[in-house]
Amino acid sequence: MTTSAKASLFVISAPSGAGKTSLVTALLERMRDIQVSVSHTTREARPGEVDGVNYHFVDKDLFVDMLGDNAFLEHAEVFGNYYGTSQQWVEATLAAGTDVILEIDWQGAQQVRKLMPCCSVFILPPSVEALHQRLTGRGQDGETVIAKRMAEAQDEISHYPEADYLVINDDFDIALDELTAIIAGQRCRIELQQQKSANLLKALLAGE
Amino acid sequence: MTTSAKASLFVISAPSGAGKTSLVTALLERMRDIQVSVSHTTREARPGEVDGVNYHFVDKDLFVDMLGDNAFLEHAEVFGNYYGTSQQWVEATLAAGTDVILEIDWQGAQQVRKLMPCCSVFILPPSVEALHQRLTGRGQDGETVIAKRMAEAQDEISHYPEADYLVINDDFDIALDELTAIIAGQRCRIELQQQKSANLLKALLAGE
Repeated sequence: MTTSAKASLFVISAPSGAGKTSLVTALLERMRDIQVSVSHTTREARPGEVDGVNYHFVDKDLFVDMLGDNAFLEHAEVFGNYYGTSQQWVEATLAAGTDVILEIDWQGAQQVRKLMPCCSVFILPPSVEALHQRLTGRGQDGETVIAKRMAEAQDEISHYPEADYLVINDDFDIALDELTAIIAGQRCRIELQQQKSANLLKALLAGE
Repeated sequence: MTTSAKASLFVISAPSGAGKTSLVTALLERMRDIQVSVSHTTREARPGEVDGVNYHFVDKDLFVDMLGDNAFLEHAEVFGNYYGTSQQWVEATLAAGTDVILEIDWQGAQQVRKLMPCCSVFILPPSVEALHQRLTGRGQDGETVIAKRMAEAQDEISHYPEADYLVINDDFDIALDELTAIIAGQRCRIELQQQKSANLLKALLAGE
């Protein structure tokens, strides 16, 4: 696998209801030089969701064909629907020097970690009560769906120790500052800087 | 060695003239919850330097006695003078939950890395010319001292790849933002968060 060492791949995971999507949306308003991968999915579009923006909505046959072609960097089945990240898009974006964010669950994060260097961030709600409130607060789903989502959230939460960084979304602005710092700090990692500032480093070492 | 996992040890190294001291001073004005270790040294105080603030100025006999007592986390000889970092102070400060910065050279950084978990940052000037200008710009030293310091700077620069992070001090404000992000990001590392938010994590995992 070829990736540019000048850009970083960030994997952001969270249980449903932790506020991940709001945080990533706010992050993108602050940092213009980073892109979020748009996943392929077989699930139905929710009201307001746009094909190619929120997801690439595809039918199951196409998804299975793409799986067969190894088109996905990672894929997962959640609530009976398939989700996948285009390997080609991620590689091309990194190769162009742009950082990439993947918003994926623990299953996907595990697959990506095996394939590529990445920096993984887990976002958690500040309490079980807050998680409950946020899951029921959407008002789109019935009790059965909420109970199922709560169980899924517990399952996702149990995988937080696999991440490199943890952000607790209690105060939204503080959580956003932390997420921003993680990404800005990661960009100063020595391996990246050696690529980005290769000429300067060569000159300083030569003393000329 | 016992250290609190709730606080981090940062090692900041740079060649003379890279602007390290100005950056750390500005950082401390932004982040009140971090402390810089005051080194012991056998060198003469420069005009304006205050004992116990800039350095603990000690004579060579006392320094050697302290060495014999393993009082130093790291020590080094630079320009014929000794410098050392009090192990007791660093451990007590970390144990109290306060992050610590050590401003030390590559020799010291190597010693600390072997003894304790730490996050090391290297600061470099944006060009050889800038380094020259900054070394001569002080106006305190003659040509021989400057030439010697330039050679030492080259030696220090050659050790930049040993650090975890690299900040290039071209635009001061950008460099300060990067240094701040490295530290703020490091505080979100999973190992630290697991210590700081142990009760929350236990509750979330239990779902109650």
